[in-house]
Amino acid sequence: MSVEHDIRLDLNRASRIGLDEAILCEGKSLAHLTHILDEAGARGARFLLTRLNAMQHAELEPRHRDALDYDALSRTAIHGEPHPPQDYPEVVVLTAGTSDVPVSREAARTLRYYGVPVKEISDVGVAGLWRLLERVDELRRAPVVITVAGMDAALPTVVGGLTPSVIIGVPTSVGYGVASGGQTALRAMLASCSAGLMVMNIDNGFGAACAALRVLRALRRQP
Amino acid sequence: MSVEHDIRLDLNRASRIGLDEAILCEGKSLAHLTHILDEAGARGARFLLTRLNAMQHAELEPRHRDALDYDALSRTAIHGEPHPPQDYPEVVVLTAGTSDVPVSREAARTLRYYGVPVKEISDVGVAGLWRLLERVDELRRAPVVITVAGMDAALPTVVGGLTPSVIIGVPTSVGYGVASGGQTALRAMLASCSAGLMVMNIDNGFGAACAALRVLRALRRQP
Amino acid sequence: MSVEHDIRLDLNRASRIGLDEAILCEGKSLAHLTHILDEAGARGARFLLTRLNAMQHAELEPRHRDALDYDALSRTAIHGEPHPPQDYPEVVVLTAGTSDVPVSREAARTLRYYGVPVKEISDVGVAGLWRLLERVDELRRAPVVITVAGMDAALPTVVGGLTPSVIIGVPTSVGYGVASGGQTALRAMLASCSAGLMVMNIDNGFGAACAALRVLRALRRQP
Amino acid sequence: MSVEHDIRLDLNRASRIGLDEAILCEGKSLAHLTHILDEAGARGARFLLTRLNAMQHAELEPRHRDALDYDALSRTAIHGEPHPPQDYPEVVVLTAGTSDVPVSREAARTLRYYGVPVKEISDVGVAGLWRLLERVDELRRAPVVITVAGMDAALPTVVGGLTPSVIIGVPTSVGYGVASGGQTALRAMLASCSAGLMVMNIDNGFGAACAALRVLRALRRQP
Amino acid sequence: MSVEHDIRLDLNRASRIGLDEAILCEGKSLAHLTHILDEAGARGARFLLTRLNAMQHAELEPRHRDALDYDALSRTAIHGEPHPPQDYPEVVVLTAGTSDVPVSREAARTLRYYGVPVKEISDVGVAGLWRLLERVDELRRAPVVITVAGMDAALPTVVGGLTPSVIIGVPTSVGYGVASGGQTALRAMLASCSAGLMVMNIDNGFGAACAALRVLRALRRQP
Amino acid sequence: MSVEHDIRLDLNRASRIGLDEAILCEGKSLAHLTHILDEAGARGARFLLTRLNAMQHAELEPRHRDALDYDALSRTAIHGEPHPPQDYPEVVVLTAGTSDVPVSREAARTLRYYGVPVKEISDVGVAGLWRLLERVDELRRAPVVITVAGMDAALPTVVGGLTPSVIIGVPTSVGYGVASGGQTALRAMLASCSAGLMVMNIDNGFGAACAALRVLRALRRQP
Amino acid sequence: MSVEHDIRLDLNRASRIGLDEAILCEGKSLAHLTHILDEAGARGARFLLTRLNAMQHAELEPRHRDALDYDALSRTAIHGEPHPPQDYPEVVVLTAGTSDVPVSREAARTLRYYGVPVKEISDVGVAGLWRLLERVDELRRAPVVITVAGMDAALPTVVGGLTPSVIIGVPTSVGYGVASGGQTALRAMLASCSAGLMVMNIDNGFGAACAALRVLRALRRQP
Amino acid sequence: MSVEHDIRLDLNRASRIGLDEAILCEGKSLAHLTHILDEAGARGARFLLTRLNAMQHAELEPRHRDALDYDALSRTAIHGEPHPPQDYPEVVVLTAGTSDVPVSREAARTLRYYGVPVKEISDVGVAGLWRLLERVDELRRAPVVITVAGMDAALPTVVGGLTPSVIIGVPTSVGYGVASGGQTALRAMLASCSAGLMVMNIDNGFGAACAALRVLRALRRQP
Repeated sequence: MSVEHDIRLDLNRASRIGLDEAILCEGKSLAHLTHILDEAGARGARFLLTRLNAMQHAELEPRHRDALDYDALSRTAIHGEPHPPQDYPEVVVLTAGTSDVPVSREAARTLRYYGVPVKEISDVGVAGLWRLLERVDELRRAPVVITVAGMDAALPTVVGGLTPSVIIGVPTSVGYGVASGGQTALRAMLASCSAGLMVMNIDNGFGAACAALRVLRALRRQP
Repeated sequence: MSVEHDIRLDLNRASRIGLDEAILCEGKSLAHLTHILDEAGARGARFLLTRLNAMQHAELEPRHRDALDYDALSRTAIHGEPHPPQDYPEVVVLTAGTSDVPVSREAARTLRYYGVPVKEISDVGVAGLWRLLERVDELRRAPVVITVAGMDAALPTVVGGLTPSVIIGVPTSVGYGVASGGQTALRAMLASCSAGLMVMNIDNGFGAACAALRVLRALRRQP
Repeated sequence: MSVEHDIRLDLNRASRIGLDEAILCEGKSLAHLTHILDEAGARGARFLLTRLNAMQHAELEPRHRDALDYDALSRTAIHGEPHPPQDYPEVVVLTAGTSDVPVSREAARTLRYYGVPVKEISDVGVAGLWRLLERVDELRRAPVVITVAGMDAALPTVVGGLTPSVIIGVPTSVGYGVASGGQTALRAMLASCSAGLMVMNIDNGFGAACAALRVLRALRRQP
Repeated sequence: MSVEHDIRLDLNRASRIGLDEAILCEGKSLAHLTHILDEAGARGARFLLTRLNAMQHAELEPRHRDALDYDALSRTAIHGEPHPPQDYPEVVVLTAGTSDVPVSREAARTLRYYGVPVKEISDVGVAGLWRLLERVDELRRAPVVITVAGMDAALPTVVGGLTPSVIIGVPTSVGYGVASGGQTALRAMLASCSAGLMVMNIDNGFGAACAALRVLRALRRQP
Repeated sequence: MSVEHDIRLDLNRASRIGLDEAILCEGKSLAHLTHILDEAGARGARFLLTRLNAMQHAELEPRHRDALDYDALSRTAIHGEPHPPQDYPEVVVLTAGTSDVPVSREAARTLRYYGVPVKEISDVGVAGLWRLLERVDELRRAPVVITVAGMDAALPTVVGGLTPSVIIGVPTSVGYGVASGGQTALRAMLASCSAGLMVMNIDNGFGAACAALRVLRALRRQP
Repeated sequence: MSVEHDIRLDLNRASRIGLDEAILCEGKSLAHLTHILDEAGARGARFLLTRLNAMQHAELEPRHRDALDYDALSRTAIHGEPHPPQDYPEVVVLTAGTSDVPVSREAARTLRYYGVPVKEISDVGVAGLWRLLERVDELRRAPVVITVAGMDAALPTVVGGLTPSVIIGVPTSVGYGVASGGQTALRAMLASCSAGLMVMNIDNGFGAACAALRVLRALRRQP
Repeated sequence: MSVEHDIRLDLNRASRIGLDEAILCEGKSLAHLTHILDEAGARGARFLLTRLNAMQHAELEPRHRDALDYDALSRTAIHGEPHPPQDYPEVVVLTAGTSDVPVSREAARTLRYYGVPVKEISDVGVAGLWRLLERVDELRRAPVVITVAGMDAALPTVVGGLTPSVIIGVPTSVGYGVASGGQTALRAMLASCSAGLMVMNIDNGFGAACAALRVLRALRRQP
Repeated sequence: MSVEHDIRLDLNRASRIGLDEAILCEGKSLAHLTHILDEAGARGARFLLTRLNAMQHAELEPRHRDALDYDALSRTAIHGEPHPPQDYPEVVVLTAGTSDVPVSREAARTLRYYGVPVKEISDVGVAGLWRLLERVDELRRAPVVITVAGMDAALPTVVGGLTPSVIIGVPTSVGYGVASGGQTALRAMLASCSAGLMVMNIDNGFGAACAALRVLRALRRQP
């Protein structure tokens, strides 16, 4: 019975698109994770693990746990040394409420893994508008503003009207009832009347960081 | 074959809940509308017709059209004399964009039918925040602010954080794609983190006015 | 690596909109809750915590648990002294069935925190109509009636036709199958033919109380 | 190229389940309808056509139009002689609002086609409860009450608590916004806390009449 | 602080609509259940409890557990003596697959509580059609056939074409993926082309039994 | 301003996957269709056009209309000569009701375009089971049975239990209310308990024919 | 009280449609599973159990566990001897990512149970296109390619354009946010512009294998 | 009666966020459009109109039509002179099929209005993969690739794996059945496993262009 290996890491992805292979751990069995970490360890690879929950992390063999820089709040882990600091302008990661921080931290950790300087600003939801208005100058200076918000996700619409920066919206699954696990925040961001707001999947802080990185890379490639 | 009359107006509704019978015209045949206007005309009744589209209005018999004060934009018509002006504080009706005006006008026309003073303020969507911030004092003075917005409906969240007034949100069917005929605006308002925001059905300017009227009546009933 | 504090309480909200900062605890980690209670305790602040489930409550440090007046049924906790009793007319909180009581109790507890007198009336669903009809006079006297119902949520439609009061509908997640976690109750309330019924998010008793408070404040501000 | 006839009437259905073949005309081309009426005319068959809209009816050949007893409001047509009057107790068809009458009339016309006595009662929505309470005795006498309602469809829940009769709920597509073409009325009826309420597809007055007929037939078959 | 009792049993429901009060236990706390059983025990009342899961049952005080005839599969319990056997014709409860039995058993247990004779026939899904065709005579003799099916719920459509009986469809939450917790089975039943099929909420075997009882009562009331 | 030609026909698709390029006409402008037909005419190409509605067809230039074999019922047109008849076994296309014939005819016309023999059998919905049971032998002989059904789509489940043939289900948008434009039929087919039933998009008779062709090609390739 | 046995195995299914009875274990109680295994053991039957989770498996009596060849990853178990190897061409089972392997393994195990040779190829998602392009020849040789993918499920569209084989798509519940438990993958496959792609229910690897088997059987039946 | 002007153009938006005011014409009445064009004409303003359908355009007064550069395919119009050509690198706009061109053209027209060089590449859907692979070098050189696709929207996932460029996905409403007006394409893009893909609302070519412009501006602002 011919069964091939189940896992095929895309290790030359970096040369192709400038992003390392990353491992989405949600739904992966301990056996799969162990196999991945064994292979990666053998080659001394540097990569990121996302959505690795605390229980999955706890079940890893000690030598694998020791090889990871794990952050429980954002459920991210880094295997190997992060990239050295890059000479990029600082990216801002804005968060509407404290419950959104696990997602904004995932974005920030991913950017830092790639050596990108990041400023996190939390709890600036527009129901208390003054908190945001105090930060307009910082927003206007950043090349990219990642805006993380759940519930009605009104924040990126207001931000988009205050700054010419690239705005990336990340809806979160925060909220109950009609918040519907982030579906309302997602739809509100997509329907935003703030021109040029770009949107990621619910809770996808990792993807937002990759998108920001694509922008920063485009900056660098310019003559 | 015993068939009863199809229409049974609730004419003592006013004494019971302080609101006149109103006729939702959408989906009603010309025969039904004619029957209603004949009955009402015979009794000299005062009432409001909502969602009476231009084609329905044009098909009415001339004597019925003449008996109505019709506004095509809001699709409302008034039969008989409106209520005399009441000594109520002015209600504010805010609109995010010009495409939302048919709905805000329905609210304003309903309030004026009941003799309530109204101020309409349009095109103050939060993607251009300065337009709203200029009006904060007016918002804070009004006992009730009806906030009409489509797409992502971020407006009432911001308004709710700026004033202690009663805030009634009316989502509109303005927008395309994920706006989904107003479902996103509706859900965003319901999920709003602005505490105490109350929400009506999509495009229901009439209902918002009735709600405002219930609030004004409660004011008056206080000792 | 510059990371700001994750939590920024909106402590001058009361002066702006007449409502204290409140903490939605669902989804917040123990670390976040502890940080909030530490900060608040240091300043002797008075505030409300909502959706604090029994497990979260049990995990708090004893000194934090001791500082809270916790009610497990409604998952609310009060930090500091509630507001002194206010000279407001009594608000009625109606409930269709006993399973809806956790939500109606959240509304009642929030109102009492603000010093508002409340009467709770339970188990008056319209499948047994006589239970509601006995209470019509009480309903008609109240300036605001908060109506809490799940499943098909027929109660607020009937109530809205019996009284001129301000009616606030709170759908609950009670029920199974097509009840869909409260979506049917929510939609039924929004589609109600009772004019002027205003609606909150599913299970949002806290929001209904804030809305009622906005109404009561408007009463008081009148000359 | 072997293509069979497209239409195969189920003419011995009556002997099998006691209901005649009926033709759902919606979406059928003129050619199909003409073919059906030619075949049926040749055999002198008696049957019902449903959802035959005015345009389809107008396009029929005159001899086919003449052979039909057509009712535009309910979009039903009868071909051949209706069944002779049957000695069944009177079925009640209740309607919440006048906009629901096209559907209730479809139910009533179907029952009359089968010779069943029917009483139609319209405009008894529960936002004006007194209209329904006047009719309780009639409701309690009827073996079957067909309840037709759109929007929030609160009517059948109240009816189900007032009478031991068989209650059949028919949601209608009346309403806008969250009414969602009858989905809210449908879900509200299915989630009703009135025990034993049975529900049909949206706008399916024909099906409700067939269901009522199954009940009446069961009565007759009893020893 | 005036808080009324939370629970108000509708004990004269039987005289009004011929059905006893029943308690939906899902979502009720132990305190609520205990209060209900105490009150009921004091009056020696006979009633049914539905959706009482094994954990809720196990947590009851021993004296309350002893007072109940509990069936874990259907999650039903009977308090007091069931009604004496009634002289009704036998109702058939059909089930498409064994996974649907918890729901069909709820219907059967409810009918037996009311003294109605029941025949349960399981595992007759139409993917193996011969299993159903063997039972056609039994189906045709029954005044009422309750048909319980999940997944695509094709069973009641076929049954409705084989017998003139009253057909009540109960969709179940059996299945995965697009089965969507019974939503597909529900919609398939409502869209069935079998004329006169009536439908209940997902998993609502109790409601189907109450509906069947309304039919049987109508039979008995005939002269 | 460099704008490329908008249309790039995939003319070597046949050599790659054995299927000709086909043109989905829905939503294409007259200009686009004209451009395609001009290009194709110049090369004398043979291809199929699908979802070409009567209005689009009527607006074509006469020389383009003349070059097409158009069938209004199925909205298909053939440009050039169909493929010569192939030595394949006969495919059966089953239809639940006459309203489904536009879709089944699209499948049949596509197969005939490719030279495949087809037998169409209509109006065999399972509410009148005898119509299907008469055809079981034909079903069992066919290598592929395409089953086209709307509403509750119970037909393919029953067919799948009667024959070992390859079964392809095509849901149609026939029906109203919960039929939801074919969503219910689609979901019912996907949730079917008939093992090995494969499903196409709603109304996609063309795709079903292509799938059948892939099966027939696999037969031929076998040694 | 007459209650029939709840379980009725369809043991002559094989002779009718060429597929053995299989047991969907999800949602079945231990008692039901035990009853099935007792009956089957007595007759020495060969059959497959699907969606038997690890907890259900662990709770079985040791003699039943011993009689099963259980695979935890795919949640499948085989009772009795698998079918002897058949002289069929090799079926390819493709998987987009490692998280999809539980579903592809279910398909592979089912095919092997029936003696069909299978090649599994994993981790060839189209975001790293080179992994797929290396395998084109294998894809083009296989009579049937089962393509298993979650999230946006772009894989089968690309595969369908590379090979004339029969393509069966199986969406998986892998992913989060808008992935919606596989609904997006399902809809993307159904809407694919790759002609002739056939689709199964979410996570239904078993069904895909049965569909493949129907195709292989059709091959064999050809003269 | 105090009614304010309904329209309030945000004319200093350009200085704030670098984007001119643009007018979404869908749903605006002729009166509103006329008012806007009058005001703008008086000030000689330069701006873009989007979703101006052919009927709205035809109804404008001739002087207003003459003042507009209108493109019917993309439903865009330009009032005043476009911005002079800018020294930006060329943006690529990719389209899966010809039916998607109205949306890609809206993006291209918007970019050209702002003086940005654009290359449009059409009909490169991944079901015919060779069409895309020929263009990889162009894709890799572009700083921003706007990818426009309907149905299953597999294109951007493949593109995202081929180039390090900024990738903006625009789902279109092309397709039928489960395509659901673009909802499936939208969800597939959001769930894409191509890291860093950013998504716009359905059919929102205008927004994609504004997003691209924000990226280009960020490039220029770099030291």
